[in-house]
Amino acid sequence: MPLFDIYERQGFRISMRTPYNRIAGENLDRLAALSDGIFAVAMTLLVLNLHIPEALPKGMISIDDGVGLLRALIRHLPNLLAYFMSFLTLGILWVGQQTQLNHFRSVDRNLTWLHLGFLLALTLIPFSTSLLATFITNYVALLIYWLNILLMGVTHFASWRYASHIGHVREDMATEEMSRVHERRLIIAQSLYALTVIPAFIVKNTSVSIVLIVLIQLNYAIAPRIPLLDRL
Amino acid sequence: MPLFDIYERQGFRISMRTPYNRIAGENLDRLAALSDGIFAVAMTLLVLNLHIPEALPKGMISIDDGVGLLRALIRHLPNLLAYFMSFLTLGILWVGQQTQLNHFRSVDRNLTWLHLGFLLALTLIPFSTSLLATFITNYVALLIYWLNILLMGVTHFASWRYASHIGHVREDMATEEMSRVHERRLIIAQSLYALTVIPAFIVKNTSVSIVLIVLIQLNYAIAPRIPLLDRL
Amino acid sequence: MPLFDIYERQGFRISMRTPYNRIAGENLDRLAALSDGIFAVAMTLLVLNLHIPEALPKGMISIDDGVGLLRALIRHLPNLLAYFMSFLTLGILWVGQQTQLNHFRSVDRNLTWLHLGFLLALTLIPFSTSLLATFITNYVALLIYWLNILLMGVTHFASWRYASHIGHVREDMATEEMSRVHERRLIIAQSLYALTVIPAFIVKNTSVSIVLIVLIQLNYAIAPRIPLLDRL
Amino acid sequence: MPLFDIYERQGFRISMRTPYNRIAGENLDRLAALSDGIFAVAMTLLVLNLHIPEALPKGMISIDDGVGLLRALIRHLPNLLAYFMSFLTLGILWVGQQTQLNHFRSVDRNLTWLHLGFLLALTLIPFSTSLLATFITNYVALLIYWLNILLMGVTHFASWRYASHIGHVREDMATEEMSRVHERRLIIAQSLYALTVIPAFIVKNTSVSIVLIVLIQLNYAIAPRIPLLDRL
Repeated sequence: MPLFDIYERQGFRISMRTPYNRIAGENLDRLAALSDGIFAVAMTLLVLNLHIPEALPKGMISIDDGVGLLRALIRHLPNLLAYFMSFLTLGILWVGQQTQLNHFRSVDRNLTWLHLGFLLALTLIPFSTSLLATFITNYVALLIYWLNILLMGVTHFASWRYASHIGHVREDMATEEMSRVHERRLIIAQSLYALTVIPAFIVKNTSVSIVLIVLIQLNYAIAPRIPLLDRL
Repeated sequence: MPLFDIYERQGFRISMRTPYNRIAGENLDRLAALSDGIFAVAMTLLVLNLHIPEALPKGMISIDDGVGLLRALIRHLPNLLAYFMSFLTLGILWVGQQTQLNHFRSVDRNLTWLHLGFLLALTLIPFSTSLLATFITNYVALLIYWLNILLMGVTHFASWRYASHIGHVREDMATEEMSRVHERRLIIAQSLYALTVIPAFIVKNTSVSIVLIVLIQLNYAIAPRIPLLDRL
Repeated sequence: MPLFDIYERQGFRISMRTPYNRIAGENLDRLAALSDGIFAVAMTLLVLNLHIPEALPKGMISIDDGVGLLRALIRHLPNLLAYFMSFLTLGILWVGQQTQLNHFRSVDRNLTWLHLGFLLALTLIPFSTSLLATFITNYVALLIYWLNILLMGVTHFASWRYASHIGHVREDMATEEMSRVHERRLIIAQSLYALTVIPAFIVKNTSVSIVLIVLIQLNYAIAPRIPLLDRL
Repeated sequence: MPLFDIYERQGFRISMRTPYNRIAGENLDRLAALSDGIFAVAMTLLVLNLHIPEALPKGMISIDDGVGLLRALIRHLPNLLAYFMSFLTLGILWVGQQTQLNHFRSVDRNLTWLHLGFLLALTLIPFSTSLLATFITNYVALLIYWLNILLMGVTHFASWRYASHIGHVREDMATEEMSRVHERRLIIAQSLYALTVIPAFIVKNTSVSIVLIVLIQLNYAIAPRIPLLDRL
């Protein structure tokens, strides 16, 4: 991975030469607070995609018609599925970012900006979810959703690599083995997402991919003892 | 409650066997921060349901017509009632979750995910409130609102059960009696909600249920000294 | 103020008799965190009232017509004024609530609920601002805006009274004089708002009131050395 | 800079004479928390400008038409550019404000209000971004966007000046040289923005300016080792 190496090796010297950058972005607590805020807003904004009351104006369904409302809601289940999938995505990423930041003892402006890149991708999730919910059977919508997840994986990976090379990882966690745990986790997860989405792009059908993504995410959330998945 | 028992007993061993899961999601402060963020956004988003200015365009009411505006606002009182009810719901749940987290000394990735399930249900409250405000007399809308509250109660209960079995509760709070206080609170509250909503589903009328829910919630918020309710 | 006295004196004994309430809502830090979150979201949501791009669709103004855009924006200045006024309102209240919480050493569930009442009123500010921006010359819109500010003042005052009677105020701040400073501040501010708004209700014209409110708020924000206002 | 001097010298005495103002707004942690909240909401709200699913209703594009969706998204690239530019703006300002607050040891109500002025300007960014995304080739939209950035620069500069004169800067950071680093950073950045935008106002064309702004911001975010830019 020569690209990361160059970036990491030059990164510190660059900031060393620029006085302001040497003092900027060094507060780990505030980085965590900003992240929690953005995760919280993004998780809550997802629900705005479930704009059923607007989609079901009183004119269309009698206000007292229980069965009619139920039927209309059932027709909107793809929206709810996209909502659920994106909440799981954000939950998995939040647990991952929290775990990574927990293992840092310090942060510099480069590491801060790698996380801001991660957060940039994060704020796009409500948008790409909304796109996928509207065009649930369109493989381009699925592709964009996947690119969004990929971007988060790449920035998160770069953040760990940079932090462990520069020496921002807490001493008790700065072991070869711990690095392998963090990096393997990200590589396996991103490989699973890629393997799930690329076929959809080839056969131009999204249904199987979406079901598989939700299953992968449930696996990460619930962590059941399935022998095959045990090592992920 | 065998389901919970199985989950709890297996839960810890599962995460023990998976290296990443053993180190993930262990920051109690960040769980509290994410929760506060989601509560804050959800509480503030509720107000978006009060979209009276859009519902009352200048074309319909003369901009200077005070009496006309007042009448129009009064006609929108059901929206305000749904808003008020949901704010109370979120307030009660926030006090409850805060109290529970205060009694924890640590957290693991399973407990984190139980809270993420709780927060998932929480982010749905603005949606189910909006649905109920639009279809205020529709028993299906009320049913969905209740299922939302039930889902929060179940995840909150599971979180306490799991934490107290695994040993995440602070030593000074890890007593049989304290567990009973936490669990009884949740069971009584959920029973009251169920007793209030189920009749509406049978007689297919929502008005009595909504008034009763608001009264139950005011009881929890204000905690007056009414002999009958004193033990709730 | 017999109502508050009764509430305060009974308040503690009530919670004493109810086990759950004795342990609930005791985290001062999380109350501050929730408040900051709600203030942050409310302050940022205000800007959604400035929906000029939607009000000025490309069809109406040529995309390159600078003068046309400028004219259209100037016609929307009342919206900007309402926005500015509400941001000042929220800023003043945030400074006030922060100052009050800083002087507390502890909190109980009753005090928590008084603050939740304060936050409920707070989440209504984007709504009443939006109403006032749409019906800027309508005295009923102004009246509702004022009732919203009044509700925040009352809950904030009740919170201080309750906290100082029950003994939640930090020892170094629990003096007669400090109480007078806190309470006088709220009473004078609310009296100024009332004196400003009530005439508008009588003469059924809002312009003078709105200008006066902004001046009062600028006085609190900038705190200039004007002899007459120096003691507010 | 006589205006700031007068303000700063009078500032402290003013608050000294007003009892409430002497005790108000002194919590540095809560100022940071409110700022993080507002940054988080503003960063996430930006994405609401990317309302492509609404702009592309199912009626216009067949739900399965991948190529059609891709073409429609490409036509919306200016929106994405405005989004990206504003996220970078907010990221740069967040790093800057975090760095400044990190160097404070205390805060008073005047300093708090200077930051509230900064946050007021911040909450306008989603609005001016939305305006610029809608009228991407209109120089008045660009001018308003720039005035917004300028307002943030001015309040941020005033905050540092006031804090360093009154003595709120941490002892280890309260050096002449550190002040020069903070102030030079802001002056150079604002000069670059002004130099970029003013020509657009003269030639009444926005494209070159927008590209230059993004390049300036990428320079601040990535901090590459370009000799010419090394001293910024």
